[in-house]
Amino acid sequence: MVVATQSLDQLCINSIRFLAIDAVEKAKSGHPGLPMGAAPMAYVLWNRLMRFNPKNPQWFNRDRFVLSAGHGCMLQYALLYLTGYDSVSLEDIKSFRQWGSRTPGHPENFETPGVEVTTGPLGQGIANAVGLAMAEAHLAAKFNKPDCQIVDHYTYVILGDGCNMEGVSGEACSLAGHLGLGKLIALYDDNHISIDGSTDIAFTEDVGKRFEAYGWHVQHVEDGNTDLAGIQRAIEAAKAVQDRPSLIKVTTTIGYGSPNKANTAGVHGAALGEDEITLTRENLGWTHPPFEIPEEVLNHFRKAVDQGASAQAEWEETLATYRTQYAAEAAEFERMLRGDRPEHWADALPTYTSADKALATRKHSEICLNALASVIPELVGGSADLTHSNLTEIKGGGDFQKGSYQNRNLRFGVREHGMGAICNGIALHNSGLIPYCATFLVFADYMRAAMRLSALSEVGVIYVMTHDSIGLGEDGPTHQPVETVASLRVIPNLLVFRPCDGTEASGAYKVAIENRQRPSVMAMSRQGLPNFDETSIEGVSKGAYVLTDSEGTPDLILIGTGSEVQLCVSAAEALRSEGKKVRVVSMPCWDLFSEQDAAYRESVLPAAVKKRLSVEAGTTFGWQEIVGDAGDSIGINRFGASAPGGTCLKEFGFTVENVIARAKALLS
Amino acid sequence: MVVATQSLDQLCINSIRFLAIDAVEKAKSGHPGLPMGAAPMAYVLWNRLMRFNPKNPQWFNRDRFVLSAGHGCMLQYALLYLTGYDSVSLEDIKSFRQWGSRTPGHPENFETPGVEVTTGPLGQGIANAVGLAMAEAHLAAKFNKPDCQIVDHYTYVILGDGCNMEGVSGEACSLAGHLGLGKLIALYDDNHISIDGSTDIAFTEDVGKRFEAYGWHVQHVEDGNTDLAGIQRAIEAAKAVQDRPSLIKVTTTIGYGSPNKANTAGVHGAALGEDEITLTRENLGWTHPPFEIPEEVLNHFRKAVDQGASAQAEWEETLATYRTQYAAEAAEFERMLRGDRPEHWADALPTYTSADKALATRKHSEICLNALASVIPELVGGSADLTHSNLTEIKGGGDFQKGSYQNRNLRFGVREHGMGAICNGIALHNSGLIPYCATFLVFADYMRAAMRLSALSEVGVIYVMTHDSIGLGEDGPTHQPVETVASLRVIPNLLVFRPCDGTEASGAYKVAIENRQRPSVMAMSRQGLPNFDETSIEGVSKGAYVLTDSEGTPDLILIGTGSEVQLCVSAAEALRSEGKKVRVVSMPCWDLFSEQDAAYRESVLPAAVKKRLSVEAGTTFGWQEIVGDAGDSIGINRFGASAPGGTCLKEFGFTVENVIARAKALLS
Repeated sequence: MVVATQSLDQLCINSIRFLAIDAVEKAKSGHPGLPMGAAPMAYVLWNRLMRFNPKNPQWFNRDRFVLSAGHGCMLQYALLYLTGYDSVSLEDIKSFRQWGSRTPGHPENFETPGVEVTTGPLGQGIANAVGLAMAEAHLAAKFNKPDCQIVDHYTYVILGDGCNMEGVSGEACSLAGHLGLGKLIALYDDNHISIDGSTDIAFTEDVGKRFEAYGWHVQHVEDGNTDLAGIQRAIEAAKAVQDRPSLIKVTTTIGYGSPNKANTAGVHGAALGEDEITLTRENLGWTHPPFEIPEEVLNHFRKAVDQGASAQAEWEETLATYRTQYAAEAAEFERMLRGDRPEHWADALPTYTSADKALATRKHSEICLNALASVIPELVGGSADLTHSNLTEIKGGGDFQKGSYQNRNLRFGVREHGMGAICNGIALHNSGLIPYCATFLVFADYMRAAMRLSALSEVGVIYVMTHDSIGLGEDGPTHQPVETVASLRVIPNLLVFRPCDGTEASGAYKVAIENRQRPSVMAMSRQGLPNFDETSIEGVSKGAYVLTDSEGTPDLILIGTGSEVQLCVSAAEALRSEGKKVRVVSMPCWDLFSEQDAAYRESVLPAAVKKRLSVEAGTTFGWQEIVGDAGDSIGINRFGASAPGGTCLKEFGFTVENVIARAKALLS
Repeated sequence: MVVATQSLDQLCINSIRFLAIDAVEKAKSGHPGLPMGAAPMAYVLWNRLMRFNPKNPQWFNRDRFVLSAGHGCMLQYALLYLTGYDSVSLEDIKSFRQWGSRTPGHPENFETPGVEVTTGPLGQGIANAVGLAMAEAHLAAKFNKPDCQIVDHYTYVILGDGCNMEGVSGEACSLAGHLGLGKLIALYDDNHISIDGSTDIAFTEDVGKRFEAYGWHVQHVEDGNTDLAGIQRAIEAAKAVQDRPSLIKVTTTIGYGSPNKANTAGVHGAALGEDEITLTRENLGWTHPPFEIPEEVLNHFRKAVDQGASAQAEWEETLATYRTQYAAEAAEFERMLRGDRPEHWADALPTYTSADKALATRKHSEICLNALASVIPELVGGSADLTHSNLTEIKGGGDFQKGSYQNRNLRFGVREHGMGAICNGIALHNSGLIPYCATFLVFADYMRAAMRLSALSEVGVIYVMTHDSIGLGEDGPTHQPVETVASLRVIPNLLVFRPCDGTEASGAYKVAIENRQRPSVMAMSRQGLPNFDETSIEGVSKGAYVLTDSEGTPDLILIGTGSEVQLCVSAAEALRSEGKKVRVVSMPCWDLFSEQDAAYRESVLPAAVKKRLSVEAGTTFGWQEIVGDAGDSIGINRFGASAPGGTCLKEFGFTVENVIARAKALLS
């Protein structure tokens, strides 16, 4: 296929291909196959249809683009460079996958402006995109007026076979179909190749039919390699379908243009090699040396800069009109975009005294969520089909459904993984929305990949995880977290809270709402817990603090979290009555405590006091860091058992008597 | 619907219902709704169609039954009791969900003979069932002869809306369709209710059409409440379709028979209450007091005992014929069923010296897998589309595909969660098969729920997890495990190995193969690692051991795992040249070390030696338990970065120089 003179379209498409080919070759690492095959659809989308402003990557009303097949990131970096984003220069492309570059091995929103979400782990991007589309639908329903539309954009996705094999994408797409998210348009790069070879070896389902079953509008572009008009028509048809999300299956050739490697797994994830690149240059009629882009190509792509500025200016005019006609709504909208919270929002959080009724912390969580929801309208969320167990309903918030997108209760169905990824998308819409989601704590395992990405992507999703220990009782070991809290504490940038009462629950929510770049986990009890006079919101913000104490240097420090703080308090009272000097420390959040200065940490856990006993109804893994060599930990290092919660706690040693006994053993 | 005289069928079905109703009521905890609605399909299946031997729950050729909707476990306990299993007596049912009972809150294979797999976490059971059906298909293809079929059973599943919403079920069912597993028959209890209410709020996809897209044979029984003949016809039709798995959508009413609670979420997961039970008794014409089953019902159900004995006897005759005609195959088959390994299998594992070439431990893993595969024919497995990265192919093992089920390389596609659950199913077929599966270590997060169930269910699945640290390089933080090893160490009953060279890789595989009731994780490097003369298979079996040492009591102990052992060895040499007495401990498996007796542990880590430095390219979380208050840990407590692996390791401090510097700081 030697092309004598290439059309401008072809030159543009080949520019994308060779930026990818040459960057991967220089790095000797990366994935050229997808960019080579998907360049035509990406070109049509970015050049002819998508609305964005390269000089303001965060312009609110831009169309969102998600490369769910994140390994093909050179496609996205090429597009960002070609269309004139400042975030990706030619130098950045030359330092693809190198230390400190803005062109890491997979797209990372926190490294590269213009990248909306962090992808790479397959299936996450399409699920994020469902969240982005939900955010748009919600804000449009909430703010748009018949005569003034300030929220109006599409969410585009390119996903591959890998994404379509992952369960997380199925979960999210099933929900997207249910919700009828008409402005979500997914281009499925159907190239029949995954890392192990032809998809024939493991993936022969009818993807289009599956998406139809989900309620999507499905089209097929049979020649995604050259039929630009067909791609364009399909995207336009998808835009016209407003009551359903659209899947456009675009059949392509992976590594298109490489004479010997196209349509093989060999081109998926490795540099083509010098010889094959030479052959590919010849085959595609590409005469330019590495990293040289023809002037006419740049000029053509960079019309995006003016077009983007115009689009933004036009939108700003609309917004100005909106401001005039709907001042209150505009103020609210702009407050959200700034990421500000309403003043004094934290005053809504209740505090308690020991006179208040014992309640489960999941109940306190419900009270907090509803108190916050009443003052923070951008708080939206829901549960994976455990609303009345997790207690996460915003009362009066209505159900977010087709036709009622302005509502705030999200109904995720039994789809934990999709839920987490969708919440990442909602947060990364960067329009001020604060998403929360909920399931039983043990099922954090189902969505851990999404939770990790919350932490890595620096988004403050709030994970409400109830039934936080063997104390949940009868459901038994499949449902009883034992290792789960520890397994979450190890994730960097994730705040894990295990409050002991109502005031601490409020404290946890205060920190969670404030931290818009760190996700939070709320490990909440099923069972009722007493309230303490000594707990405080401020204490929670420091991660750990002295709850009760004796005069002078303590003989012993009891350290508890969540439902076990009460055991420590009672045991301390008993021990004090026998003349022991005992301090009780409540430690609702390890991470925050470790971030306090040394003086504060010393004030809570003086180095001189070596006798320390931790009590937590979970694994003791990690606790030695707190209790030290001379300390001890009461925990459970096996799976639980099916029995009433009180029985489980007692049988596994979570009793005041056992705390006293183990404390005495330390003191003796 | 007052029934004057009930047919025997109706009495039997109502017996199931009332055992569930009364057991849940007595426990004041549990899920009556599913058993009440699914009793008819369960009755037809267990009474008319399924082949099993109550007095020998492990009879090899039984049909497998999986209650994927595990919360409905009283359905299964009722069936086990009624059909005459010794594992569930009426007393057991009366102590439903109580401490020490054999009737826990969800079905647990390790508690209750007759329960094949542990379910409850939704979607797992159907994925396990795919594994059971794959095991059957493999053994049938391997052992059956045209004139003598010793492997020939169905795998039946009852799953609900929740299972169908979970991504893990989609992954597994897509693969089952691809593989054409004709003896897998799933009954979908289509009751339109999940915990949050009608499935209309979150789940309106066309499930049947989705399964058709997967390549399944799909039928619909419109009246699953009363049309017993229709249920039977559908199951028989499903059995007749041999080239595709079957889904039978059986539309039922949750809580069928309860006048006020049927068809509501209220009956899903709570006791009916005394009044409603009285009304339900009246409504269903059930005159018997709680836990009393009419004699005729027991007689009818317990025909299963004789039928099962006959079925087993008939099979044993076939096996006797097989033994005569195919002695070698029979010996092999029976060895597998006994769970024996071929003699001297472990001799196949290679050991190395420092003269051997440096290789990545993933490469050593490949060598071990192939060495073992050649002597252990029951070893089967594969990767989630990373075969040539994980290096998990059994050479010459062929691909397990439709028409070639005798082959041993499983092609999971990009379906980690389904893969893990399928491997649990293969192992729980209890026919001696040893399944392994593979992906990048960081994607343990995608299948963690299945890995937890391997550990809880006591099945020795081998998880080959390569690319085990930031050392994987350019793929960047989305692909770089940092917290993953620690997050797996916290799971009870899971062995986590991080070998440092070829000999340790062999040691890890030896332990993994031996442990048929504990799953193992092999954390293997992408990058090459030197071999040591001092490493040993025996050392690995103890979890940690002294690798190199100075004379006399050491001043300092360096403790490394995996790729960081080489840093410890080199740093120790340098320190010794400066006159320091330094011991190097390799610690490939924390769990095994913690299980050694105190004397052995003291011999490796003497209490008197307080200066200890651990080096592991992962979080330091948990290491203080090993290094103690006076020790130090080199690790990485943030996410990684995209750059060549060597650069990442160096930038994050994994260098000999840094180990020496930190060691000197400890010694000073």
